[in-house]
Amino acid sequence: MERPRVDLNSDLGEGFGVWRLGDDTALLDVVSSANVACGFHAGDPSTMRRVCAAAADRGVTIGAQVSYRDLAGFGRRFVDVEPRELADEVVYQLAALDGFARIAGSRVRYVKPHGALYNAVVTHTGQAEALVAAVRDYDPDLAALGLPGSEWLRLAEEAGLRTVREAFADRAYRPDGSLVPRREPGAVVRDGDEVVHRGLRMVTEGVVRAVDGTDVAVRPASLCVHGDTPGAVALAVRVRDALRDAGVEVRAFG
Amino acid sequence: MERPRVDLNSDLGEGFGVWRLGDDTALLDVVSSANVACGFHAGDPSTMRRVCAAAADRGVTIGAQVSYRDLAGFGRRFVDVEPRELADEVVYQLAALDGFARIAGSRVRYVKPHGALYNAVVTHTGQAEALVAAVRDYDPDLAALGLPGSEWLRLAEEAGLRTVREAFADRAYRPDGSLVPRREPGAVVRDGDEVVHRGLRMVTEGVVRAVDGTDVAVRPASLCVHGDTPGAVALAVRVRDALRDAGVEVRAFG
Amino acid sequence: MERPRVDLNSDLGEGFGVWRLGDDTALLDVVSSANVACGFHAGDPSTMRRVCAAAADRGVTIGAQVSYRDLAGFGRRFVDVEPRELADEVVYQLAALDGFARIAGSRVRYVKPHGALYNAVVTHTGQAEALVAAVRDYDPDLAALGLPGSEWLRLAEEAGLRTVREAFADRAYRPDGSLVPRREPGAVVRDGDEVVHRGLRMVTEGVVRAVDGTDVAVRPASLCVHGDTPGAVALAVRVRDALRDAGVEVRAFG
Amino acid sequence: MERPRVDLNSDLGEGFGVWRLGDDTALLDVVSSANVACGFHAGDPSTMRRVCAAAADRGVTIGAQVSYRDLAGFGRRFVDVEPRELADEVVYQLAALDGFARIAGSRVRYVKPHGALYNAVVTHTGQAEALVAAVRDYDPDLAALGLPGSEWLRLAEEAGLRTVREAFADRAYRPDGSLVPRREPGAVVRDGDEVVHRGLRMVTEGVVRAVDGTDVAVRPASLCVHGDTPGAVALAVRVRDALRDAGVEVRAFG
Repeated sequence: MERPRVDLNSDLGEGFGVWRLGDDTALLDVVSSANVACGFHAGDPSTMRRVCAAAADRGVTIGAQVSYRDLAGFGRRFVDVEPRELADEVVYQLAALDGFARIAGSRVRYVKPHGALYNAVVTHTGQAEALVAAVRDYDPDLAALGLPGSEWLRLAEEAGLRTVREAFADRAYRPDGSLVPRREPGAVVRDGDEVVHRGLRMVTEGVVRAVDGTDVAVRPASLCVHGDTPGAVALAVRVRDALRDAGVEVRAFG
Repeated sequence: MERPRVDLNSDLGEGFGVWRLGDDTALLDVVSSANVACGFHAGDPSTMRRVCAAAADRGVTIGAQVSYRDLAGFGRRFVDVEPRELADEVVYQLAALDGFARIAGSRVRYVKPHGALYNAVVTHTGQAEALVAAVRDYDPDLAALGLPGSEWLRLAEEAGLRTVREAFADRAYRPDGSLVPRREPGAVVRDGDEVVHRGLRMVTEGVVRAVDGTDVAVRPASLCVHGDTPGAVALAVRVRDALRDAGVEVRAFG
Repeated sequence: MERPRVDLNSDLGEGFGVWRLGDDTALLDVVSSANVACGFHAGDPSTMRRVCAAAADRGVTIGAQVSYRDLAGFGRRFVDVEPRELADEVVYQLAALDGFARIAGSRVRYVKPHGALYNAVVTHTGQAEALVAAVRDYDPDLAALGLPGSEWLRLAEEAGLRTVREAFADRAYRPDGSLVPRREPGAVVRDGDEVVHRGLRMVTEGVVRAVDGTDVAVRPASLCVHGDTPGAVALAVRVRDALRDAGVEVRAFG
Repeated sequence: MERPRVDLNSDLGEGFGVWRLGDDTALLDVVSSANVACGFHAGDPSTMRRVCAAAADRGVTIGAQVSYRDLAGFGRRFVDVEPRELADEVVYQLAALDGFARIAGSRVRYVKPHGALYNAVVTHTGQAEALVAAVRDYDPDLAALGLPGSEWLRLAEEAGLRTVREAFADRAYRPDGSLVPRREPGAVVRDGDEVVHRGLRMVTEGVVRAVDGTDVAVRPASLCVHGDTPGAVALAVRVRDALRDAGVEVRAFG
């Protein structure tokens, strides 16, 4: 029997200029994949270079965390940009990041949309198509990381791209496999033990308990952990250690 | 005896969003090399894609016209950015453009600094080193295009990069080979016949008449023509035709 | 009997840095009210100063053309910004413009949302409330200019603000008084005679012929004319002259 | 005999979007004047509103901390912007801030240039003139806060503006009254006792010990304290308390 395994991904390089967010270095010692901000919601060029170099040093896989052009809103505002323009903005970001990844001796291996764009392409077919077109045009060997059941993963698969199913140990799920929106109460699971338990169950049983008490299939190839709140890195470490203790191999999907 | 030849380069893709500047399509039918704006002084992603595609269609060589981060000032304001950060900003721009060039079936082949950065690296050693470092790190096969005698070309050569000497048929020169700054009277040669004559002499004799009446050696591998003023494209056509009539081959230096 | 009158407004100052859009000076000789861009979709500070000075010179009323923060999309992309943040962004823009208006010896007299924000506040109650809150907080003497029937005008009126009903002689209307979206065929009336005829009828009869052939009441206090396409200024002149010939007084609503 | 007094000023509102810098609330309980960022180097509209409201609540005077347009460099990069454009950019910023100050029931009372602009106008006459022109045009009742001996204060005085001499308890001085540049060793005094001692001496004796051991006259009307490093707020409190213990009244210069 094959040993179970999963990837751990996290958002990194989300400062801009003098401003910092999260502890990139600490997280890079925990995760197997780094979603690196590309300058549109966060991430100045010097930060991109540093994070790519640090990720490459540790053998952490580099992904492009692409976003709407929205520094003021940190990419959390839905923007009704034309798909054709969105595709071009995504190419711009991922090519720029790939420059730093290559300089670090690595490469961008996957694309993960950020914030409002992540949520939009769950259902917005036009913008999901734009993401897929950008990836396919730039490099069809890149993987598409996102929510199971999203238009983004459906269309990526249709286009022959590799897809990576993602799950969130600290987010509440609805019975249909969608996330409870952050604005709603209970959207984020704050109890550490519960987060660890959910993460473990996602990987070993392939399911998560939804808000209505039923189990939803998630079968993630990658778990997302966060580093931008106090205690977040410590929690990420706990999740990783619990997975390892349960015999799960934590490594990039690449 | 070898037939004389020269490259014609021009700045392209210098609109942003709804705003347009110059006639990219007309210029692409004249030049052999396109200095494509990369988003920092001009050039949104969709424009970058279109210009790269149109250049590739015509066999025009693509170069990265990199700039200070200065949309409001169109890159014409000197910015005293730290060399380390400048190098990263240059990698960001040129990698982003290279993404569109590759999608168009081509590649970025050279780097030309824009506006105030062009002028700065004539004498600013730190920023010139930053440009060279960015090019060498990203792709040492890229050529450095700039002013003969500049720190930029001197350091590029020292670093083993290919250098391309550029001259301006419509700019006044000082006896030391530097350009008369645009703020000074007589900086730009406005008489069409004179521009054509100067361009021809630069290529066939390797010299230009300086403001003091002496001849300065320029020996350009590339002549810059402009497209952003009324009549500019027509003048560029005249320069090209005069070169061809004189037996000069107009083609990219690549 | 009172002489009929109407205001003519137009978008002005919509360049940015080196980029220009439309002929501000020509339009200022036609309109009675200038919707001046405030830097978020267009309009750098020097342009704002110049347009305010030129408007004040001609006795043209100055309004703040506020927008989403979106230079790359010219404010034409809907942005799902939190109403609280939108209100603050609107205050920022209108206060900045008011600075230049005051320096020119005038003042900002009204607020007109631009582009996607204009369309959003027809139905988006939260964003319309944000606009109203910004205006009321900054200066409750400012008028709200917008589409009759919009949430924006309804809430502005409720808040005790003066409202100015706007109509577009060159746009197709639906029977409910809403505009045919620009993406749909026939959204813009291109025939000059027809535009003049519609403008005249709007002001003198208070109605416009909708796409289904019925007449819709619009009763505009202000007609919008455009200046950013070839022939636009000439058409604006024709509309103004036709109004005057019909005995309508063209003057600001202030 | 009149009781000695001094103003304490600090930079505030220097976050942007999700990013934070320093503890605005804690500092507002210490200082008498708040230099509020206006959006060009930091300071989104919602932060500007909040800081103005909190300052007004505490009776803290509001000043406009104007900057080059440089979010990526936090205004620390000298930008060779044309004085005419700089003046307009300064009006834009200070008028925008004044909007929030007025909404909070207060007003902008003074202008302090930020970062590289602060340093530039010590000697750069053209940019100093631009600052003065902006202030005089917008509101000649505003005070000019800056370094004694700077072009900025000299020209402001010449133009009839009120000037406020500023000193830094934690910065090393050269014998001519200029600051040791941050890049040089010893530029910042890190010992808390020393900072308190220097601040006290500046206010009560009007001098500071320069790097060559001589005393330089500074006679500050305002002392600058910082809040963006660990321990900074505590040190600001110590400086204030030491001043009070020495019988100095800490209050705004207004």
